[in-house]
Amino acid sequence: MPRYTPDTCAIHYLVFIGEGRRLAHAAKKIENAKAPDRAAFAGWLSTTNEITRAFLGAGEIKGLINIAGGLPDPTTYPVEDIAKIAAKAIRDYPAETLGYGPIEGLPDLRSQIAQRFSTPSMTLSNRNVLITTSGMQGLDLLGKALLDNSDVVAGQFPTYLGALDAWRPRQPQFRNMDFTSEGFDPNTAMQGAKFAYTVPNFSNPTGRLVGTQLREALVAAADASGTWLIEDDPYGSLNYDGLLPPSMLQIAMQSGDTGPVVYLGTMSKLISPGLRVGWAIAAPEMIEALTLAKQGSDMCTSGITQRIACEVLKSGIIEARQAQVADHYRARRDALCAAMSEHLSDWFEWEVPAGGMFVWARARDARINTDRLFEIGLEEKVCISPSSVFDAHGEDRQGMRLNFTLNAEEDLTEAIRRLARTVERFLKEDI
Amino acid sequence: MPRYTPDTCAIHYLVFIGEGRRLAHAAKKIENAKAPDRAAFAGWLSTTNEITRAFLGAGEIKGLINIAGGLPDPTTYPVEDIAKIAAKAIRDYPAETLGYGPIEGLPDLRSQIAQRFSTPSMTLSNRNVLITTSGMQGLDLLGKALLDNSDVVAGQFPTYLGALDAWRPRQPQFRNMDFTSEGFDPNTAMQGAKFAYTVPNFSNPTGRLVGTQLREALVAAADASGTWLIEDDPYGSLNYDGLLPPSMLQIAMQSGDTGPVVYLGTMSKLISPGLRVGWAIAAPEMIEALTLAKQGSDMCTSGITQRIACEVLKSGIIEARQAQVADHYRARRDALCAAMSEHLSDWFEWEVPAGGMFVWARARDARINTDRLFEIGLEEKVCISPSSVFDAHGEDRQGMRLNFTLNAEEDLTEAIRRLARTVERFLKEDI
Repeated sequence: MPRYTPDTCAIHYLVFIGEGRRLAHAAKKIENAKAPDRAAFAGWLSTTNEITRAFLGAGEIKGLINIAGGLPDPTTYPVEDIAKIAAKAIRDYPAETLGYGPIEGLPDLRSQIAQRFSTPSMTLSNRNVLITTSGMQGLDLLGKALLDNSDVVAGQFPTYLGALDAWRPRQPQFRNMDFTSEGFDPNTAMQGAKFAYTVPNFSNPTGRLVGTQLREALVAAADASGTWLIEDDPYGSLNYDGLLPPSMLQIAMQSGDTGPVVYLGTMSKLISPGLRVGWAIAAPEMIEALTLAKQGSDMCTSGITQRIACEVLKSGIIEARQAQVADHYRARRDALCAAMSEHLSDWFEWEVPAGGMFVWARARDARINTDRLFEIGLEEKVCISPSSVFDAHGEDRQGMRLNFTLNAEEDLTEAIRRLARTVERFLKEDI
Repeated sequence: MPRYTPDTCAIHYLVFIGEGRRLAHAAKKIENAKAPDRAAFAGWLSTTNEITRAFLGAGEIKGLINIAGGLPDPTTYPVEDIAKIAAKAIRDYPAETLGYGPIEGLPDLRSQIAQRFSTPSMTLSNRNVLITTSGMQGLDLLGKALLDNSDVVAGQFPTYLGALDAWRPRQPQFRNMDFTSEGFDPNTAMQGAKFAYTVPNFSNPTGRLVGTQLREALVAAADASGTWLIEDDPYGSLNYDGLLPPSMLQIAMQSGDTGPVVYLGTMSKLISPGLRVGWAIAAPEMIEALTLAKQGSDMCTSGITQRIACEVLKSGIIEARQAQVADHYRARRDALCAAMSEHLSDWFEWEVPAGGMFVWARARDARINTDRLFEIGLEEKVCISPSSVFDAHGEDRQGMRLNFTLNAEEDLTEAIRRLARTVERFLKEDI
């Protein structure tokens, strides 16, 4: 893999936004500021939580090991390949890369995506595909296309709050779906919801892989209730231990159409987040609604980044490096989990995730408060994501999310040693 | 200038979206379609007008000369320069171009923009600048940051409906500001509005240049009423006949801060729309609110396109080609206006615009209905934008917008000949 000195400034800046709460503090400031003589900001902006302010402060700490964020390892980017592809794309397709493009995306790229996701049961066409400016834009467009004020969104819990943030301007009601709770019933959970939001492959924050049976039940429940079923899949390509279950999109396609599923994909974990290229796959009427929402959002995604994405998909680069990237991250995951077993198993329990970027640890000891661990951790020069930032109501204090993709193995081990000292300090002050 | 065969497919597709109504027909289809057994789309999607369907049909007509859209001439793009800059940007800044970046944009690019727009009265800092994924995203973020349902937006009339479309998901009330009407009073127009939307340089569709006095009055009225004042400036760089008045941003900055002005700029007309890079300049609290809205929209703009934009701004390419591009478009404007004088002056009147992309013609003859001229025009193989598509209420049938940037001079002349035949046919059927 190519090596270079990462732009650590940008990395440090961004390491805190994995949970999508980076700027909630700005809203706080806006609310508290001496009101300028100007019209007020929209109502949804005036919410926040205190932990975010602390996250921001953490960026300043020298020697900190940050396992809070959700960043890939920059050394995995195929820099030279992308540089060559970019220059050739602009020379070979000047009008397409430098001009305006169709709102729905470049036909050639849509066709690449349609082919990749077609199955023996169903051939997808371009009418099933919208190119989005990142996976996050897919979430934003779904909110625009589906939500009126106070509509209900059912969401896998705990979840990536960045997703919920994308919908907050539309002021929906959030209903938690806890797939692990004993009485979970997909039919009840979806009743009356405009859409259900799920991340079945190595969910953020839990790393959980949803099994085939539950996937089938979710598709059936969505079909029965008329709820759209969002399958957000940023992490499916980061798969370390075995085959994935069929996607909910594939399951729905067995009936010859995409049914209630809206599948969201992204180039971010396949090759590079900097492209900001993602896609939605769904029924043509949903693609048309999303396209109308995209028109007023950014008109079209950059032709430069779309054409690069298209040529990367055609080139075979992704397939050629997939095993290597999986090896790289599997070793980091194993290093983190080994250190956790050695230093944290008295106080926490967790499952080793089969893919993705995160280990989700739950406290065995009810006295543990991970918001406070986060604070002490900064003094010990380790930064974690406490569970409260994955709870729309900010109440869960018994868990934490640890990232294993960004840091080298020796740093992960050291981070867990620091975290163990952190827990010891917490227990002393608590008792 | 480099020459190449434009990708005419993409061009034809896009030529119809200049007025931002491209996909209203999709909403119509959604509304009329046999309801699928799925949750309904959001309320704002179910509006349309009939003219859009006809626009779409026009894409199929062979030999059509299209003066309806708002596209630059693709031969003006500095293809080789951008190809080289792109490859170098990725090699020199791999983490920045290929990774996640700060939500607000690359510090180096924000600094470039801050320097360019600083004045002797005031030095702008990065805190005054947000990078947006195109100028359109700037409009979208403004809606998110400022509008709750039924808030009032005052907008320069007639206006680019694409802008109004960006705000429709927030369901505001639109109030027209007609700068040319005799009793126009900025104070009354802005009273109670969250923001006022203006395009003072060569507005779309009218090509009108707002004078210094009115700019000063708009800034003063915004300050007095507490209304934010949006200065959308995509066309300022397409200036053919003389110096521009000071921007409203500059006027506000005389008091030592940016006051009520939110200035929106874009690389689209400076160099290439394919970058999808724009910026907002405003008071820091507004930048923070827009940043919070951007976080849930696409997280950050592509590092690749931002770094290309930054290097283009530093390179001097823009300044080196500005006069050449102005000559190119001035000749086209003059060709269009000469043909109009020869063939259309009995029925229409217009002012020759000093910049931008459009001539706005008003009927002298009250019998003329430009929606009908649009339809007959397609049979005569010329496509115009009728004034109804620039009226939020769709009522104005007495004007048309003609583009002079996309087509060569001989094609513009031929288009006007066809338009004259169109008017003659219309008058025969009318009488």
